[in-house]
Amino acid sequence: MTDVAERVAEFRTYLKRMQHYHEAISLMHWDLRTGAPRKGVELRSEAIGTLAGELFELATSPQLGEMLEALSDDSVFPALDRITQAAVREVRREYERNRKIPADRHRAFVVLTAKAQTVWEEAKAASDFSLLRPYLEEIVAMTSEFIDCWGYGEHRYDTLLDMYEPGVTVRLLDDIFGRLREDTVALVQAIVASGRRVDTTPLQRYFDPARQRQFSRLLLERMGYDFEAGRLDETAHPFESAINRYDVRVTTKFLPHDVRSAIFSTIHEGGHALYEQGISPDLIDTPLCNGTSYGIHESQSRFWENFIGRSREFWEFNYADLLRLFPAELADVSLDHFHRAVNHVEPSLIRIEADEVTYNLHIMIRYELEKALVAGDLKVADLPGVWREKMREYLGVEPATDAEGVLQDVHWSGGDFGYFPSYALGNVYAAQFRSALARDIPDFMEQVRRGELQAIKAWLNDRIHRHGKLLKPKEIIRQVTGEDVNAVHLVAYFREKFEPLYGL
Amino acid sequence: MTDVAERVAEFRTYLKRMQHYHEAISLMHWDLRTGAPRKGVELRSEAIGTLAGELFELATSPQLGEMLEALSDDSVFPALDRITQAAVREVRREYERNRKIPADRHRAFVVLTAKAQTVWEEAKAASDFSLLRPYLEEIVAMTSEFIDCWGYGEHRYDTLLDMYEPGVTVRLLDDIFGRLREDTVALVQAIVASGRRVDTTPLQRYFDPARQRQFSRLLLERMGYDFEAGRLDETAHPFESAINRYDVRVTTKFLPHDVRSAIFSTIHEGGHALYEQGISPDLIDTPLCNGTSYGIHESQSRFWENFIGRSREFWEFNYADLLRLFPAELADVSLDHFHRAVNHVEPSLIRIEADEVTYNLHIMIRYELEKALVAGDLKVADLPGVWREKMREYLGVEPATDAEGVLQDVHWSGGDFGYFPSYALGNVYAAQFRSALARDIPDFMEQVRRGELQAIKAWLNDRIHRHGKLLKPKEIIRQVTGEDVNAVHLVAYFREKFEPLYGL
Repeated sequence: MTDVAERVAEFRTYLKRMQHYHEAISLMHWDLRTGAPRKGVELRSEAIGTLAGELFELATSPQLGEMLEALSDDSVFPALDRITQAAVREVRREYERNRKIPADRHRAFVVLTAKAQTVWEEAKAASDFSLLRPYLEEIVAMTSEFIDCWGYGEHRYDTLLDMYEPGVTVRLLDDIFGRLREDTVALVQAIVASGRRVDTTPLQRYFDPARQRQFSRLLLERMGYDFEAGRLDETAHPFESAINRYDVRVTTKFLPHDVRSAIFSTIHEGGHALYEQGISPDLIDTPLCNGTSYGIHESQSRFWENFIGRSREFWEFNYADLLRLFPAELADVSLDHFHRAVNHVEPSLIRIEADEVTYNLHIMIRYELEKALVAGDLKVADLPGVWREKMREYLGVEPATDAEGVLQDVHWSGGDFGYFPSYALGNVYAAQFRSALARDIPDFMEQVRRGELQAIKAWLNDRIHRHGKLLKPKEIIRQVTGEDVNAVHLVAYFREKFEPLYGL
Repeated sequence: MTDVAERVAEFRTYLKRMQHYHEAISLMHWDLRTGAPRKGVELRSEAIGTLAGELFELATSPQLGEMLEALSDDSVFPALDRITQAAVREVRREYERNRKIPADRHRAFVVLTAKAQTVWEEAKAASDFSLLRPYLEEIVAMTSEFIDCWGYGEHRYDTLLDMYEPGVTVRLLDDIFGRLREDTVALVQAIVASGRRVDTTPLQRYFDPARQRQFSRLLLERMGYDFEAGRLDETAHPFESAINRYDVRVTTKFLPHDVRSAIFSTIHEGGHALYEQGISPDLIDTPLCNGTSYGIHESQSRFWENFIGRSREFWEFNYADLLRLFPAELADVSLDHFHRAVNHVEPSLIRIEADEVTYNLHIMIRYELEKALVAGDLKVADLPGVWREKMREYLGVEPATDAEGVLQDVHWSGGDFGYFPSYALGNVYAAQFRSALARDIPDFMEQVRRGELQAIKAWLNDRIHRHGKLLKPKEIIRQVTGEDVNAVHLVAYFREKFEPLYGL
């Protein structure tokens, strides 16, 4: 072997070893959430801590630094294969980020946020923001300290956004969210003013969980989810976990008194899973073998959940099977009624229960608060009040308690500033992908009406999934749609779908 | 801290880290066997290989060697606490064993046995010993090479026995098995000659697996298995896995057409699990937090499965619940009939399907063959023929194919010579424990008849379980029974139980 070939082989072996730690840690988390016995959790958490620590050491070791430097050299890099090049870039980015933070400060942050998440649970249960406040203040201060270590472009918040959505900036988000907010607020007001309401109570009758499970499995099969490379379990909070390239698991939640929960959680997590199951096997054993960003990942789950799963065409095909499983429960619920009920739009307090239209407004509130905190324009102590104000302004509703307000999400106590925007970006991207799909497969919704989802899945596999992290979010968007990120398609889709539904 | 206190803390931290790797690897194996998707197995196996490799490095590192040396020093060791002393001894034993084998030979053995196990599956399916023969020859040769590295006492096989059952030797086993064989062969011949046979077909009707699962859970609850520190799943081959001190899982197997399988697998694995759930929490994060040997472990599973679970008294209490679950299926099966059917004795070909009495004869055959192979008195090529001879001699039956004969077990292809005897030792130990229990709690079988198993479990916890690996098998036996290992109690128990059952 040449010297370069040897170096590449050594680097790839090192990456593979890191992936093996990832696999172990992912499985340990999955197990904790799907049925590990209660009493074993404490020891398990310590074991996860040890392996995560070893992985962090691998990700920041001088040995890795030397490999990266050698492979990045101008005399070497251009001759590398495309996958190794992308892996060098990706690993280097993480390596440099991690190395800029002193090890003791990193550990202090891990300890602080672990503690804060426990305090958050108590604070939420007691609906008492003051319990969490000192922790959040410390977390914001440390985040600010890290921003100084990392450096940043135009806005201090940009460096946080870049962790979740590489290339996305405050400038871009202000533009996209500005347009989207204006239009969404107007649409929501029109919907509320229309006075049209649908009775959703028939979907809150008793629905046997075992039969709900059957239906969830059927939906995943129809979407093309590969059960030989994954499995479906039940958890309090549904999630998808890619344990390895051929082991991509999903969970859902069977509420006995709400048939919607399992259906849309399953389709949502199934969308995430199709992404991971669609990545090119060439990327196995590298950190490129994952979805490229939080936002693009969310675009896949939202595409399936909302654009396909809440469409009239989808239920024209699938409702018969739901009726077959629940003939008595749904005897008086027409297809039309069902379709309207799963597209009910109403301003509400809780993000994760929000409908497709109002959801993004919840995100924008969090985005604006995070941005202001990081810029030093807002104090942690003022969060609850500003939260209420923004809720009133954007959604016209106001929480009576902090549990239903500023304390509802775990993210901030985990130190995850910069994460929320990717949820809304997922919807923005999904609408752009939908337009591109309509251009390439003009009759795709007719295919959905016939229960044919293969061509849609194949299109997503080919255009988006297979690339893994080989392409950045911006590159994917540009390559698939021919445009840059913009909210035009999402706004148009909302009007196209909801104006007729609400007779506007 | 004093210098010694620092050294102890460093050592204990190191051991804890090793336990965390064990936990990850155990969970990865458990998951593979309980429902990991088929297509992910190959990548998973590689990930396990990486972590197992790291653990082996930890177990053989010069750093560990230095710690062991320092703590073993005459000026230090006597002042250590009892747990650290035992941990030093235990880790040192493994360390020295592992260090005596050159690393490249160890790797070669791992690769060879991994390959041989795959070949064994093919050979068994084709019932063709010649496929496996070259691999077994290589495994025996390498085992012999390792024995030379390790050194040995009186017999070359002693060093293998010592891995599974510390302190047990060929001299001891020849003595125990000699007595046991003579008596067992005579008993089995008498049983066969009695002409008494029980109709077991009623237990092979259709038994709904979901209700079998209910009964298995009920049995585990009655035994005192803690479901908050474990869980029950279904697998093709039942097993118990101690993932951590508070996460001890069992699996069982629900055969739709044999109600016995799940019942006795559940009780058997439950017996293993009670052992692990009963270890003193003081031993957490050390390698002492496990059952002390394969034989003592097996004594706990066999004690529950056979001595308690197949007793008349046990079913006097529990049969009503089985009838409640299967009223139609068991309508014509009396308690007496059921009890006889689950104690049916008949020489047969397959070890894992053998009854309580004939089981040990299967083990003795394997023991004698292993001993002869290791001593160089038997060639691998001659195994199938000698196997048939011994089966005829001990059990009076002879396999028509190698699949039902010498190829039936995976152990040899895995390189696990020295393992089999611990299965029979488990029965020997269990009978000794039963006599000690009868001495301490004379009415224990009356308690079983009333469904009261708490005092028995508490006795096992106190006398055996809590010690973990703090005591060696020989020490446990001596301390609990006041005797050394001997087959007298097992022989007496067989006669006491089976002579009346077969009218002898």
